Amino acid sequence: MNGAESLVKTLLDSGVEVCFANPGTSEMHFVAALDRHPEMRCILCLFEGGVSGAADGYYRMSGRVAATLLHLAPGFGNAFANLHNARKAQSGIVNVMGDHASYHLKHESPLKGDTVGISQTISHWTRVSGDATLVASDGAAAVQAARSNNGQIATLILPANTAWEDAAAAVVAVTPPPLRRPRLADVQAAARALRQPGAALMVDGAALYSDLGQVAARIARASGCTLMAPFFSARSRRGAGSLRMQRLAYEVDTNVGILADKSVLVLCGTQRPTAFFAYPGKPSLPESPDCRVIELCSIDMDYAWTLAEIARELAAEGDLPETAFQPLDLPALPSGAMSLEKVGQAIAHLMPEDTVVVNEAITSGQPVGLPMVGARGHDVLVTMGGAIGQCLPAAVGAAVACPDRKVLALSGDGSAMYTLQSLWTMAREGLDVCIVIFANRTYKILHGELVNVGVANVGRNVNRMFDMVEPTLDWVALAQGHGVAAVRAVTADEFVTAFAGAMARRGPYLIEVVC
Amino acid sequence: MNGAESLVKTLLDSGVEVCFANPGTSEMHFVAALDRHPEMRCILCLFEGGVSGAADGYYRMSGRVAATLLHLAPGFGNAFANLHNARKAQSGIVNVMGDHASYHLKHESPLKGDTVGISQTISHWTRVSGDATLVASDGAAAVQAARSNNGQIATLILPANTAWEDAAAAVVAVTPPPLRRPRLADVQAAARALRQPGAALMVDGAALYSDLGQVAARIARASGCTLMAPFFSARSRRGAGSLRMQRLAYEVDTNVGILADKSVLVLCGTQRPTAFFAYPGKPSLPESPDCRVIELCSIDMDYAWTLAEIARELAAEGDLPETAFQPLDLPALPSGAMSLEKVGQAIAHLMPEDTVVVNEAITSGQPVGLPMVGARGHDVLVTMGGAIGQCLPAAVGAAVACPDRKVLALSGDGSAMYTLQSLWTMAREGLDVCIVIFANRTYKILHGELVNVGVANVGRNVNRMFDMVEPTLDWVALAQGHGVAAVRAVTADEFVTAFAGAMARRGPYLIEVVC
Repeated sequence: MNGAESLVKTLLDSGVEVCFANPGTSEMHFVAALDRHPEMRCILCLFEGGVSGAADGYYRMSGRVAATLLHLAPGFGNAFANLHNARKAQSGIVNVMGDHASYHLKHESPLKGDTVGISQTISHWTRVSGDATLVASDGAAAVQAARSNNGQIATLILPANTAWEDAAAAVVAVTPPPLRRPRLADVQAAARALRQPGAALMVDGAALYSDLGQVAARIARASGCTLMAPFFSARSRRGAGSLRMQRLAYEVDTNVGILADKSVLVLCGTQRPTAFFAYPGKPSLPESPDCRVIELCSIDMDYAWTLAEIARELAAEGDLPETAFQPLDLPALPSGAMSLEKVGQAIAHLMPEDTVVVNEAITSGQPVGLPMVGARGHDVLVTMGGAIGQCLPAAVGAAVACPDRKVLALSGDGSAMYTLQSLWTMAREGLDVCIVIFANRTYKILHGELVNVGVANVGRNVNRMFDMVEPTLDWVALAQGHGVAAVRAVTADEFVTAFAGAMARRGPYLIEVVC
Repeated sequence: MNGAESLVKTLLDSGVEVCFANPGTSEMHFVAALDRHPEMRCILCLFEGGVSGAADGYYRMSGRVAATLLHLAPGFGNAFANLHNARKAQSGIVNVMGDHASYHLKHESPLKGDTVGISQTISHWTRVSGDATLVASDGAAAVQAARSNNGQIATLILPANTAWEDAAAAVVAVTPPPLRRPRLADVQAAARALRQPGAALMVDGAALYSDLGQVAARIARASGCTLMAPFFSARSRRGAGSLRMQRLAYEVDTNVGILADKSVLVLCGTQRPTAFFAYPGKPSLPESPDCRVIELCSIDMDYAWTLAEIARELAAEGDLPETAFQPLDLPALPSGAMSLEKVGQAIAHLMPEDTVVVNEAITSGQPVGLPMVGARGHDVLVTMGGAIGQCLPAAVGAAVACPDRKVLALSGDGSAMYTLQSLWTMAREGLDVCIVIFANRTYKILHGELVNVGVANVGRNVNRMFDMVEPTLDWVALAQGHGVAAVRAVTADEFVTAFAGAMARRGPYLIEVVC
């Protein structure tokens, strides 16, 4: 058994069963080893950004670590942006990056690059396997690292000779070390603080999509505090039956208003709210200067235990009232001219229970999302690191994780163009994804940000850098080029027909919304 | 004047007149400043890999430094692979990477990332502008760095507040320091060594496309040595009127044969030949153990001076004989069934003088290139760092640099899929690029590499990771989706018709060769 095979067996024995891949010429022994183990599901993406984004979406919906197979430095570079998003989403991923044979690295070959350097700029854990006999234990350590601290990016760099030389037996990854916990006294103090007038508890992570949310809701009921959620979250349950929480907004000005009357903000399993960017004359932090922010438990700590301890301290028990949950409230089917609100109404009306909505609609997201509040229960994944091009890859991963659920990818046209190659993987794997492209033919958010920094009138260079016109993109042709059936919707009626058709079929289907 | 404007004026005053851009939300002040200076040509690419690859192609064909505008860490990550290629091509580029306002960096906002770390893994020069009053001088230093050592990657990180705060006046970049030179005694010794039987001189850089090559050819004639060129070179003149040199091959085994009888190999302006990868049982270095390799002058040194000194030492003067140059030798137009050789014949027959050929046809490159040896004189750019997805972006940059020359992009389908968004920029800018996609529907080179490492029979996972079938990509639809006219050629006759039409028109046009 060579090193590559010892790694494949280690991954399989450790419960890693999916490998999103775009192999290059330095990974041939690993490829050969994967070929001898068809029980590992290898999924080809035609660009590495598709690989890393798919692993992110897969983890969010399955809680399981996938492997990625990436080519040495530049290939990893292509995966970087969606690894950034995955890192911010706390997704566990094991990247296997091939490298030159260790003895070859002293020569200046074309593909030689700083594999360790680029990995360390984004991974929580990086290791170069120094010897074939260590590959199995290094692989097991990578899986453990990916599962640690509620999910991490672990990158194992595999010099080609460690892949082809004789190796040791496969190793099973051991359980990660226990999650760090806050001091009990701090938990109890935070619980008391939640009883103050104007107190709020902000939660994140599994509290937004699992029963853990009910613990938080009971705490809110027992203490009288406001239960809050961040604007961006890796996964959250929405629609009928989901817990009602006050969500922060994207704009810092809005958040200043939302938090104006808060005297205490206890953070449990979430990061401190901060402005997406700094703007001249606007604050970086949205809370009032009088608000006490208690950073009790970060997202990489044991927030489930922490919430349970707060609940115990507050004697927060019992069933929640019906009013704690969002009721079903389906809008009527729209008709007439196109609008983003009508797209949201049609989606809400037609979308089946348990749809996974991957939302990178950016500026279109809010008007589309509003009518979806009372839709059938669904999960929402959003781009966590602000790096666009995450939607289509994450939809691939979510569909692989949840083959029995409909996946709905909502993307701006600018975002979708970053990683449009994922359409092909959807077709190849027969993934049940409906893709809605909001073709406003501009980076609309940039127009807004330019106003935010005080620029009112724009000229040629702004238009040349912001707008995707002359020519317009033809998303129907782009989808068909990737082997995905597609249709364009110019009116609300056309969208209703197209979306109803998409919900009735299986497999990828793209709708271009001209808006 | 704010920092952003001081930077734009500094770039313009320093002779940087093109900015390949994909701005994000942190670059708004720089965008606004660009908008006030329409004399800077801003060219939008719909993915950052298109940005960096275009700047590479632009430098190779113009010798001029372009600016890129890239979003903080993930945006730079997307540009990474083609920056790797540009670095290996010795292309000078100034990257402007926006970042958060410096005071905002202490907060964990979604887009916060290791901007310095990722820049340093690929750039020769990285600086964070610490204060608005320093932005102009930092920008000038970046331009100088990009022009130093025969071309470098310089990255200026611009925190948003240094862009919007009050700045100093623009600064003009000063001339780079003189290039390093080898010791004269070493040059003279190398010149003497070239007189030995079995000696070879390997050159690169401008010696492959400018009159400097004639200096090298005179040296070869005077000393009796073999004049050689590396397999990969950033730019080389080929076809009728170009200097004949012995080029190395891609495969290390072939190069072992080519170099078997060489007793001395003098390297001037080029890197030591090395195998693309290491393979079990094959050497990393192709020369014979008896060969003395003299690394006289690296590519970042003053190889023009060095060649002139060698010529002086050898009294290598006078006109070169006609046999030193490649004669015109146009193949007949092919017909009948499709083959790669016939594609090369048709291209060679029809391609106009001074075409810029950007060649990333990978496994298709050799059979297509062979009939092109005697074509009309043309320049060839190849991917220097082995990171695929360089062809279409570099064709954009080459066409911007040479608006009066036809650009011919030859790409494998796997490579072209990496950065297909560049097609849109070709359409937007009306660039005169003919794109030929070799649609063999597989990463064919990987099949070969797998054989190289000793795997004969492949199974499901290899086929699932190597082959782009089920579904096949439709390049005509993909091109049309980006606003580029396209046609599919299944026979040689169809290719001849399509290519003749492409040569007769201006503007982008794509031909899918089913092969």
